Amino acid sequence: MKFWRNCDKAIGNKFAMRTLANIAQALNLVFRGDGDVVIESVGTLSGATANQISFLSNSKYSHQLHETNAAAVILNHKDAETYPGNVLITDDSYVTFAKVAQILSSKENTSPVIHQQSAIDAQAHLENGVSVGAFSVIAAHCKIAKDCQIANNVTIGEGVVLGKACVIKSGVVIEPGCQLGDRCVVHPGAVIGADGFGLARDKGGWVKIPQTGVVVLGDDCEIGANTTVDCGAIDNTVLGNDVRLDNQIQIGHNVQIGDHTVIAGCTAVAGSTKIGKNCLIGGGVGIVGHISICDEVVIQAMSLVTHSIKNKGNYSAASPLQSTKDWRKNAVRFRQLDQLARKVNQMEKKLK
Amino acid sequence: MKFWRNCDKAIGNKFAMRTLANIAQALNLVFRGDGDVVIESVGTLSGATANQISFLSNSKYSHQLHETNAAAVILNHKDAETYPGNVLITDDSYVTFAKVAQILSSKENTSPVIHQQSAIDAQAHLENGVSVGAFSVIAAHCKIAKDCQIANNVTIGEGVVLGKACVIKSGVVIEPGCQLGDRCVVHPGAVIGADGFGLARDKGGWVKIPQTGVVVLGDDCEIGANTTVDCGAIDNTVLGNDVRLDNQIQIGHNVQIGDHTVIAGCTAVAGSTKIGKNCLIGGGVGIVGHISICDEVVIQAMSLVTHSIKNKGNYSAASPLQSTKDWRKNAVRFRQLDQLARKVNQMEKKLK
Amino acid sequence: MKFWRNCDKAIGNKFAMRTLANIAQALNLVFRGDGDVVIESVGTLSGATANQISFLSNSKYSHQLHETNAAAVILNHKDAETYPGNVLITDDSYVTFAKVAQILSSKENTSPVIHQQSAIDAQAHLENGVSVGAFSVIAAHCKIAKDCQIANNVTIGEGVVLGKACVIKSGVVIEPGCQLGDRCVVHPGAVIGADGFGLARDKGGWVKIPQTGVVVLGDDCEIGANTTVDCGAIDNTVLGNDVRLDNQIQIGHNVQIGDHTVIAGCTAVAGSTKIGKNCLIGGGVGIVGHISICDEVVIQAMSLVTHSIKNKGNYSAASPLQSTKDWRKNAVRFRQLDQLARKVNQMEKKLK
Repeated sequence: MKFWRNCDKAIGNKFAMRTLANIAQALNLVFRGDGDVVIESVGTLSGATANQISFLSNSKYSHQLHETNAAAVILNHKDAETYPGNVLITDDSYVTFAKVAQILSSKENTSPVIHQQSAIDAQAHLENGVSVGAFSVIAAHCKIAKDCQIANNVTIGEGVVLGKACVIKSGVVIEPGCQLGDRCVVHPGAVIGADGFGLARDKGGWVKIPQTGVVVLGDDCEIGANTTVDCGAIDNTVLGNDVRLDNQIQIGHNVQIGDHTVIAGCTAVAGSTKIGKNCLIGGGVGIVGHISICDEVVIQAMSLVTHSIKNKGNYSAASPLQSTKDWRKNAVRFRQLDQLARKVNQMEKKLK
Repeated sequence: MKFWRNCDKAIGNKFAMRTLANIAQALNLVFRGDGDVVIESVGTLSGATANQISFLSNSKYSHQLHETNAAAVILNHKDAETYPGNVLITDDSYVTFAKVAQILSSKENTSPVIHQQSAIDAQAHLENGVSVGAFSVIAAHCKIAKDCQIANNVTIGEGVVLGKACVIKSGVVIEPGCQLGDRCVVHPGAVIGADGFGLARDKGGWVKIPQTGVVVLGDDCEIGANTTVDCGAIDNTVLGNDVRLDNQIQIGHNVQIGDHTVIAGCTAVAGSTKIGKNCLIGGGVGIVGHISICDEVVIQAMSLVTHSIKNKGNYSAASPLQSTKDWRKNAVRFRQLDQLARKVNQMEKKLK
Repeated sequence: MKFWRNCDKAIGNKFAMRTLANIAQALNLVFRGDGDVVIESVGTLSGATANQISFLSNSKYSHQLHETNAAAVILNHKDAETYPGNVLITDDSYVTFAKVAQILSSKENTSPVIHQQSAIDAQAHLENGVSVGAFSVIAAHCKIAKDCQIANNVTIGEGVVLGKACVIKSGVVIEPGCQLGDRCVVHPGAVIGADGFGLARDKGGWVKIPQTGVVVLGDDCEIGANTTVDCGAIDNTVLGNDVRLDNQIQIGHNVQIGDHTVIAGCTAVAGSTKIGKNCLIGGGVGIVGHISICDEVVIQAMSLVTHSIKNKGNYSAASPLQSTKDWRKNAVRFRQLDQLARKVNQMEKKLK
């Protein structure tokens, strides 16, 4: 359940009203102007209405600041100096915006509900404050810590452990034995702990290698919609703390990902690869198996990583977009590039 | 539910029989030959049986025309001239084939059924003719217009609006507040309205930015199996009318897509990008965030689009397939391409 | 349900204990050492405990052999010669490891259970030994052969046929009319038989072409988590025997894949393409529609295949990873590659 702008008034009213002064106090920040102005939600500078708070973090939008209808604006100190309206003053307007939005999107405490059309095994252990939606399954020997929210049509397999206040959205499958830390969010349709892809060639056919490890997630991880994180083959697949995966990502068996690493949508990481801390991996990237990527590596969209990366830095590989007419000519030459280079080298010798 | 060829006779019999004359009348077209011939389904020229209708739209298959066993064939005027068999005559045989197939695959009107093992909130509003399958959830404040078909194990969140005659296949998740136009089709496992990927860096960690917008789809949109369309961060993610998305696609938050644009499987569009009308985007394409692509752009498979496209046309980027042995040599040279070009320029000066 | 290492002792005890001698006998292999040593599960050489069996198949890990704590080790004849511990001797240690792991991960026979919160149509036919989990749907006219295991929140549409001992994991959708052979495994969230992507252009808009074929899988196929295999447009989409698909793969309508072909994660195969037997297709590969790839082709990760491949061999296309700084310079030159090649050719003439 989340807050949204375009819902019926009847629904919007369920959320608590907040004032600028209350928000400033909650975040230990200074405000200027009318502290009693009521703020219901966040908006962009150009789109905000008189009961919304906005923010400026990209100077590209500075010109919109003095025309906004927002009830108040979140600004860095320098921008705040000259702004005449209601303002929440901060060192980092984008981070403060994120925190204000979290406050405004949090619902009033509602009582946790176990839907009567769910299937919770008698040998599963649920702590206080756990909600379970309709048609969700919690198998035997699960340990679901307090304040977890499990939505609808979710399957949680035998022996799964969820830390405190995890949010498991609708349609998620968590296979047996997987372990999630506190405050993890798993978005709709994600699959955690499916079998890794392990096959041995035998007499022209394939023998499946049973995948006997699990997936272990640290605290504050986020797993995107329809993303898949495979279980380990023997040992486990392990994500550290605060690892953030976007949608449609594939993480192979026995992959390890360090704390605070972020991966954008549709990227695939093959088995047994180790990714360091604080990496930023773009969308549509492919990373082959059994390699190691050090901390603080940035990889641009749609790159293929075929070797270990031992130095932090920014890496790219995708070939550049062209008109198809030009591309056809250049692509033919790419196929002959080695020949071309040899020819140039011979000509160079001749010239000397 | 759809028609299929290989089912039991008992199932096939449930569908209405049609004759060539009836079909011609329904589409306001002319036929020639035996109008009473019964047509049960569509088939290829080479595979059709005596109760199927076939078509010729690609001249590559012309030679199959005079050997087909089809009950009748859909032909353009010119091809019809010389064909001696039963024929349905049209200006566009492929479009007519599509329409005939739609007629033949439509089931007799069956009474809509709300499965007793579903969970429909007392505050959800369903119009007449809505079907809901087993283990599907419709939350409070939803508005489901007439003749919608919702299959099994579907979750529809709070306040969702579905237009007339939408088809929501099994395993779909539609998150709270999303709005679909009339006649949209959402294929199995698709997720509409999951959180966009929004994070702010704070003291070495990440703060999640609540995603408070929704997804708004126009009329006649199609969302492929296991495709994900994220909700907007503040404003909405908006698809126009007749937008067709294949399977396994990822659409980021606040993306806008114009009418009649078609996107093939496994393509990813990052946040806040705007795609025009009547574009054809190939499979496995990556489009970075915050750019704009004008109307009538064609992008070939597996291209990465890193900048706005301001002129309609046909674009490509993928590097060409080679034997791995050749590729190894050429790829090394690609890494030295700038050096090579500089060397050639120097040699050119020397030669002059 | 699978075995896993890190579960509660209480759960682990449910699995049968095995001895080295029993395992050797089951696989018709020779062992040396203490045949009565009890083996509960598999482990890596470095991580195995005293109740686990390990293996050596990659000589890179030879040094770990003499330090392992494993109860026994699976070794090829040559490695076994000098190993002083308990050993299971074989021609192919990796294949034997796979088979031993299968034995150890097989549960004791448990009685099949039809969960009472499932929805099985009165006209569906289930043979003996079939299990169905909670909130799973089996529609009319399905034929589910003996010993199939269907997990939770699964939808199996009208007229589906499953061969013996298929395993359908949680959250899977199999659309009407699809046919699976014996012992197929479909991993969580996979969708089999969704509509192919067929559209005809009509007066600026799109007319959907009903997809009236089904998906037919041979025996021993594996379909990965969140993978999608579309139904055929008119004829069927057909996978042979022992075809193994990893996660997040998209197979278009009317694709044909030959026996024993293996495809890694996130690869997309467009409609009507034919792939031969014993191919190895890497991850993130794109294969365009209406082409043909012969037997025994290997395609490296993230290649785009735009033409038919008529000779077996190893193919690549992805452009190589570089620092983004270097990449920027080289990518510019790639766009001018045809010009550069022409210039070199002119200079060559001049030099002659």
